[in-house]
Amino acid sequence: MIPDALLTRLRDLLGDRLSTGASVRELHSRGESHHHAVLPDAVVFPSSTEQVQAIVAACAAHRVPMTPFGAGSSLEGHVIPLRAGVSVDLTRMARILRLSVEDLDVTVEPGVTRKQLDRHLQSTGLFFPLDPGADATIGGMAATRASGTTAVRYGTMRELVLGLTAVVADGRAVRTGSRARKSSAGYDLTRLFVGAEGTLGIITEVTLRLYGRPEAVAAATCWFETIDAAVNAVIAIVQLGIPVARIELLDEVQMEAVRRHSRLDHPAAPTLFFEFHGMSDAQVEEQAIAVGAIVGEHAGQGFARASSPEARAKLWQARHDAYYAALALRPGARGWTTDVCVPISRLAECIHATKADLATSHLVGPLVGHVGDGNFHLVIPVDPESNTDLAEAERITDRLVERALAMGGTCSGEHGVGIGKMRFLEAEHGAAALDVMRAIKRALDPHDLMNPGKILPPRD
Amino acid sequence: MIPDALLTRLRDLLGDRLSTGASVRELHSRGESHHHAVLPDAVVFPSSTEQVQAIVAACAAHRVPMTPFGAGSSLEGHVIPLRAGVSVDLTRMARILRLSVEDLDVTVEPGVTRKQLDRHLQSTGLFFPLDPGADATIGGMAATRASGTTAVRYGTMRELVLGLTAVVADGRAVRTGSRARKSSAGYDLTRLFVGAEGTLGIITEVTLRLYGRPEAVAAATCWFETIDAAVNAVIAIVQLGIPVARIELLDEVQMEAVRRHSRLDHPAAPTLFFEFHGMSDAQVEEQAIAVGAIVGEHAGQGFARASSPEARAKLWQARHDAYYAALALRPGARGWTTDVCVPISRLAECIHATKADLATSHLVGPLVGHVGDGNFHLVIPVDPESNTDLAEAERITDRLVERALAMGGTCSGEHGVGIGKMRFLEAEHGAAALDVMRAIKRALDPHDLMNPGKILPPRD
Repeated sequence: MIPDALLTRLRDLLGDRLSTGASVRELHSRGESHHHAVLPDAVVFPSSTEQVQAIVAACAAHRVPMTPFGAGSSLEGHVIPLRAGVSVDLTRMARILRLSVEDLDVTVEPGVTRKQLDRHLQSTGLFFPLDPGADATIGGMAATRASGTTAVRYGTMRELVLGLTAVVADGRAVRTGSRARKSSAGYDLTRLFVGAEGTLGIITEVTLRLYGRPEAVAAATCWFETIDAAVNAVIAIVQLGIPVARIELLDEVQMEAVRRHSRLDHPAAPTLFFEFHGMSDAQVEEQAIAVGAIVGEHAGQGFARASSPEARAKLWQARHDAYYAALALRPGARGWTTDVCVPISRLAECIHATKADLATSHLVGPLVGHVGDGNFHLVIPVDPESNTDLAEAERITDRLVERALAMGGTCSGEHGVGIGKMRFLEAEHGAAALDVMRAIKRALDPHDLMNPGKILPPRD
Repeated sequence: MIPDALLTRLRDLLGDRLSTGASVRELHSRGESHHHAVLPDAVVFPSSTEQVQAIVAACAAHRVPMTPFGAGSSLEGHVIPLRAGVSVDLTRMARILRLSVEDLDVTVEPGVTRKQLDRHLQSTGLFFPLDPGADATIGGMAATRASGTTAVRYGTMRELVLGLTAVVADGRAVRTGSRARKSSAGYDLTRLFVGAEGTLGIITEVTLRLYGRPEAVAAATCWFETIDAAVNAVIAIVQLGIPVARIELLDEVQMEAVRRHSRLDHPAAPTLFFEFHGMSDAQVEEQAIAVGAIVGEHAGQGFARASSPEARAKLWQARHDAYYAALALRPGARGWTTDVCVPISRLAECIHATKADLATSHLVGPLVGHVGDGNFHLVIPVDPESNTDLAEAERITDRLVERALAMGGTCSGEHGVGIGKMRFLEAEHGAAALDVMRAIKRALDPHDLMNPGKILPPRD
């Protein structure tokens, strides 16, 4: 339990935007995945950077841990307050602070969601291209270095965050980056906080790079007899440098789930979903023709363009709902997700071996991939109370990550480390790199109060 | 002087690849700019990561500072061994370690130069797009977060380094990143070492992202009566999102210098240099037509396409030699360079005010800019022995940086901080961010042995 003196201080500071009620604490005890929930002692809802600073200073004075919370769509347990303490819910900080259409950039509070930002930009001719599926907050996306379906063309939060403000453990607000498109003025603190998952500080402002909304957009799908053929078509598209905006793969298991869940009328076969963006219909047409030719060479079937914006929206909504469609395969289950990313030339081999592994398992593992980046997920529905399920999901994941690392890949393409991928960090980065990460953590958060227990595995 | 025991140790380790000769030390006492030279006590030429580790461990044991050295083309004094000690020359580490045409990536030793890499890739259909002008080493480019003429389309070393190996102060080799195109597995150590200018460790391997060589390339130039008109044309091109590969501005002073130095037959008027890359002639044509229309709207004159690869090469060689052309305006002078980068919407205003400032100065300041990024340089020829010159160059720079920061920009777009821009870091980032940088430096290099005296200004 946290000290009464701290509760009193927080109540003075926040009034009724401090809660110790059971239901609010329950809501802040977990994200969307299978990881075991832990209740925070209290939940605070700050409305400004200054309030976050005051909260951090107060908690730090009492050596009480803090865990930031956004949309709660995290898949790796990032938002679980492992050592209880205070959950810092940033969803009341949801203002668009500044927008420059001329400079194609915007500064937002961390609780702004992706869809909220998209609505705000609708009339400007600009858009923020990243799309991780969930309606995540921009703060959460920055904290986990999120990306999603459009990263193959537009990059990830690593590329799209121009600067940010983070409150560090001593309560100071650190501004990083600038609105300049490039800078070599000192250590890249922006990229240090992006992906640090709240372990180095709490993000309270984010400046994002925007893009002009494409004049022309088209979508297409195409199915294959084998997943190898589908992946080999993707490899060829990427190697030719065709600037496709989205290249998504759903395997036959995931397609069956999506057909049921979203009533999508497509064969339950390995399927590629494409989206093309261009300055003109001619450009989009040129991309679609080039892609159509390649999928044809790989025996792709039914290469069909979505005929209308509505058809396109339905297609992508079905793709977005793939996670829930996968879970619906087993009512009451929770999702255990994997997230490896490998060099594109190894992708077919990695997926092939992974599906062979799954074929021997009692668990089902629908596969969905941002394959243009070499990134794919299994969404394995598990019963979080079943040790058999958890042990088997862990076995599949261990073998998959080992395979990806041997290919020069990563254990996490976009979901972050949280709790779930912590045990792979040393194998991926080596002991020396991990010690450098630990040294940075100690330097910035000597009492281990900022989202403790995440990213960095304890030293043996 | 460094201890005899250390010299003995280094000689045992390196044999004749250790030098204490006057001419070698002199060569390692400075880069290309006006900053005052300092002689190292010794220069070492390691040939492997393991040797760099042994050198660092030996120097650290004796608390002797180390300063990495590459091509020596640095403009901000990065390579000057301010506290003497050992200059670590990495030019003997110049092997291409691994190339994957399929994955569009390559791993090189730090002494590989940009042109060497380009020759190596010539037959592969791939290229490494960054071009800072000088034939810098890849290690040096990573260390200073370099970019140059093509960053507007391809990004900077921040985007193009996929991973690296750095030897840190305790002699350990830290591997960062992976060959995956994206990752959210832990702190972004790659981006921390990129731009750290050797103050956190010595880079001994770099993995770079490559691109397919464009099928079609075209170049064009266009001149304007006023610099405002030229910059406003650029702003329109950027805001429309036309993916031009290079957009360079040379003002009338720089053009006069280039005309003389490179015998280029262009008017001595503000001039834009363009390069267009595309998958087809049609794509390049589309870009050129769009740009031609915009420059026409801004009263651009003589929009002319270079007719042949030779003409294109001559044009870009002239642009590359702009630095030397500027210096040649005043024989015997050294270059004092500025490097601000501002949001694109403020660029015309920033350049206009800067040229007004220069008009009142006794110094001449040719202007050359990577204007698509909002980045431009003055190359001010100064007599490094003249306090009047130095004080005036400093005055111009101070006012320029103050102007750029007020516009949301940065004091250094691509040259790095080194010694030259150190005094602006607090104004740009604020005290809290600077303290975070200092904490990271202390955590990784507690005895301040890695390129000491650079980037981080001493605390008041």
